[in-house]
Amino acid sequence: MPTGRIDLNCDMGEGFGAWTMGDDPAMLDVVTSANIACGFHAGDPMIMTETVRAALERKVQIGAHPAFNDLAGFGRRAIAGIGPREIERLVAYQIGALQGCAALVGHRVGHVKPHGALYNLAAVEPDIAAAIVRAIRAVDRSLTLVGPPASALEAAGGSAGLRVAREVFADRSYEDDGQLTPRSQPGAVIHDAAVAAQRVVGMVVDRTIICRSGKRLALVADTVCVHGDTPGAVAIARSIRAALEAAGCTVAPLASAAMP
Amino acid sequence: MPTGRIDLNCDMGEGFGAWTMGDDPAMLDVVTSANIACGFHAGDPMIMTETVRAALERKVQIGAHPAFNDLAGFGRRAIAGIGPREIERLVAYQIGALQGCAALVGHRVGHVKPHGALYNLAAVEPDIAAAIVRAIRAVDRSLTLVGPPASALEAAGGSAGLRVAREVFADRSYEDDGQLTPRSQPGAVIHDAAVAAQRVVGMVVDRTIICRSGKRLALVADTVCVHGDTPGAVAIARSIRAALEAAGCTVAPLASAAMP
Amino acid sequence: MPTGRIDLNCDMGEGFGAWTMGDDPAMLDVVTSANIACGFHAGDPMIMTETVRAALERKVQIGAHPAFNDLAGFGRRAIAGIGPREIERLVAYQIGALQGCAALVGHRVGHVKPHGALYNLAAVEPDIAAAIVRAIRAVDRSLTLVGPPASALEAAGGSAGLRVAREVFADRSYEDDGQLTPRSQPGAVIHDAAVAAQRVVGMVVDRTIICRSGKRLALVADTVCVHGDTPGAVAIARSIRAALEAAGCTVAPLASAAMP
Amino acid sequence: MPTGRIDLNCDMGEGFGAWTMGDDPAMLDVVTSANIACGFHAGDPMIMTETVRAALERKVQIGAHPAFNDLAGFGRRAIAGIGPREIERLVAYQIGALQGCAALVGHRVGHVKPHGALYNLAAVEPDIAAAIVRAIRAVDRSLTLVGPPASALEAAGGSAGLRVAREVFADRSYEDDGQLTPRSQPGAVIHDAAVAAQRVVGMVVDRTIICRSGKRLALVADTVCVHGDTPGAVAIARSIRAALEAAGCTVAPLASAAMP
Repeated sequence: MPTGRIDLNCDMGEGFGAWTMGDDPAMLDVVTSANIACGFHAGDPMIMTETVRAALERKVQIGAHPAFNDLAGFGRRAIAGIGPREIERLVAYQIGALQGCAALVGHRVGHVKPHGALYNLAAVEPDIAAAIVRAIRAVDRSLTLVGPPASALEAAGGSAGLRVAREVFADRSYEDDGQLTPRSQPGAVIHDAAVAAQRVVGMVVDRTIICRSGKRLALVADTVCVHGDTPGAVAIARSIRAALEAAGCTVAPLASAAMP
Repeated sequence: MPTGRIDLNCDMGEGFGAWTMGDDPAMLDVVTSANIACGFHAGDPMIMTETVRAALERKVQIGAHPAFNDLAGFGRRAIAGIGPREIERLVAYQIGALQGCAALVGHRVGHVKPHGALYNLAAVEPDIAAAIVRAIRAVDRSLTLVGPPASALEAAGGSAGLRVAREVFADRSYEDDGQLTPRSQPGAVIHDAAVAAQRVVGMVVDRTIICRSGKRLALVADTVCVHGDTPGAVAIARSIRAALEAAGCTVAPLASAAMP
Repeated sequence: MPTGRIDLNCDMGEGFGAWTMGDDPAMLDVVTSANIACGFHAGDPMIMTETVRAALERKVQIGAHPAFNDLAGFGRRAIAGIGPREIERLVAYQIGALQGCAALVGHRVGHVKPHGALYNLAAVEPDIAAAIVRAIRAVDRSLTLVGPPASALEAAGGSAGLRVAREVFADRSYEDDGQLTPRSQPGAVIHDAAVAAQRVVGMVVDRTIICRSGKRLALVADTVCVHGDTPGAVAIARSIRAALEAAGCTVAPLASAAMP
Repeated sequence: MPTGRIDLNCDMGEGFGAWTMGDDPAMLDVVTSANIACGFHAGDPMIMTETVRAALERKVQIGAHPAFNDLAGFGRRAIAGIGPREIERLVAYQIGALQGCAALVGHRVGHVKPHGALYNLAAVEPDIAAAIVRAIRAVDRSLTLVGPPASALEAAGGSAGLRVAREVFADRSYEDDGQLTPRSQPGAVIHDAAVAAQRVVGMVVDRTIICRSGKRLALVADTVCVHGDTPGAVAIARSIRAALEAAGCTVAPLASAAMP
């Protein structure tokens, strides 16, 4: 991916039944990739299909956002005893389910980004990362895997020959080792839209991140995650996109092959 | 499908988590097609994948067995307000989910048979039948649709160009109009293995069914459903298969194209 | 209940896990009774307990709001095959569950109002109504039953000796027979806060309702339901309360015995 | 509790919807206490109420068997992020729910025994144990708490003034420190009914257990858990009861106050 080209992704379709979360239509006007909940932490066939349709109308790429089967915990809770075998299966199930919904409206799944506790585990546990990669390869080896840079997930995807997109977070601070500052620390979350936008431009143009300590760290990002379920989410996302375009960056989906 | 050729199908993978239902390995040694629960009325990614694997080992064709999202009611309850749009989506979701699991073990989904309340509705409601057919066509138009003969489902599948397999029940009595005797009526369910086997041979060889009234009714069957979750299920299934083979019938899957 | 005294009730605690619905704290500042979801259509032990606590702080009475076990459908869907025996049990379960949560914060359950499809069924099906009444009597016969006037539910509760509170809706139009105008009809829902407030004052002070046809109908209301999950819900509720107080009505909970 | 008096308890009502687990009626003929699943790891209002009714008919005491909300994992999985506050609430909810069902058939909840991962956590985590104890005390302080001897749960219950019953397992081996041998170790589970029965008699009559190492350990047991969901479960339970009675022990429920 050339310098200056970047994807903006957002988790979407995270309602369930009568419940909604975030303003998906507004976010779809800003981002270039949508990670769609597949019914395990959120989402249901109606919401999934409507989200895919809305993405297609705006030429936004879609990806599966598989998670632990945990509606009550929104997929954010680590669950002991869910090992690689089960993870391989639940990821394959969820990718397939989204492919089924996408077929209804003529869109195509282009990437996979694990959600919540599964994302966090896959970042550090090689056997979990490998299970996710096996599932993706079995279902469709042309899918792009989205994960954190310098993680077990990136390594597993790369060595299995998957296209891997390295993801950074617009609204999170980083430590000197390139890991996200834990949310329990002060300054872990960046609430100021202008600051977030400036940081993202730095990551994309200069390929560096200024850590919480002030240290500059080299970091290559292929996609920037903007959150859709926080106050002011849409405004922040718009600021980031505007700043990127003002800096001459091309904001475009990861894998144009997946666009019809 | 030539006279004398018949498929035996059974609903399988209908456990959930720690719960089991029926003796799937024993039934897989008898039948030629397995309808696999897709997580909505029963089944989960672990059970689905292991059921697919066990089917593949025995060269048994697999099909999706989509249902209403109703674990508590095992998909047997009609739920008001689930209309064609939602049904189209939940069927596409479930077919895709099973395709994902099948990909893990190198098998391929060959057919779709709606489950429980969805099957009953699709038999009589043209708009429900059409929604199921749209979902199948969108996901994979080479899939065979399994449904009752002379039903709205058979009609919808046929007019949309899907391959349709007409299903009869080994252990159920029929009325003069070709419909199943309601379970509330005496004699609706046949518990005697020998009687069930003899009736199935008649349906396959003579293409007629002797109704509860004694009337003979012409009826062409492509597949016979044997139940796996009743007492003596395996013995009944074996009796039926033995009787069919003794009568010179070929017991074989519906769509050999789906077998690897 | 004397003329001029009225309870304002609202359905609350209808989030689930990470999802929220409505602005419960704001509504609790306006109403005098809260119908709390019990985990079947919405709600979980955390949400239930926090809702009870917030109600207690404002001296708002709490009631159980039992429903079909249907998170996916928010309890709004009639489910075939759930008969009186199951309804008796699921109502007893949900009342008990809320009592358990209420015990944690020192509040006490004072009433029971069925939710959604269960409410609608109980209004017209005497055996369903009787099942709900049996459950309430078994668990705590001092509980007030909330239901529509001139319904099977009111009749069942009255003949079993339960205290029954007749509920009207602030934002719904009525037909000449005293039934709610179906939502499919134009004018079924009243969106104008001033109109809604004026209608409620009429119901409470004059004990009449002006039907959609213009006809005046005698109607005694003990409690008025204000919705919490529609746009402008809080403003409408405040208008109604202010109008009632301006008209000299006493806005107070149904059963002060349940207040600590 | 006098020497020679012992309760036999079994987890029951662990089906869900169409699924069953174990042979509850047979086990109810053997044991004196039933721990009834409350809908979170297993059980639903129908199963709960029928299990309570069957227990009452045999004068078997009932207890709540609360668990994490985890049908997919049968409550056996530790779930990160469920802390004391949530546990307090989910235990209160589940006790109340069972009380509601018990009220329908005229029985009364007499004890509480946490299930699966919650039991294991409560044995070693004082803050989890304290949360469970707070919930029990809030709902009904006359309830007996069932837990492992020499555990955080026993300590929390004792210091809060609850009646605590110390539970041992008939079919499990113990280490020298009084803890259960982990299931991953050889010999952790005892499959021989005669051996299990002999060990239980030793625990009750001699108040000692022979550890896996051969060491004798002093241990006072108030109740013995017999499993209902393993092969031969009923036969093992009968052997244990017969051996206890042959040795002159009184097999009786924990808290006769809870029996009507």
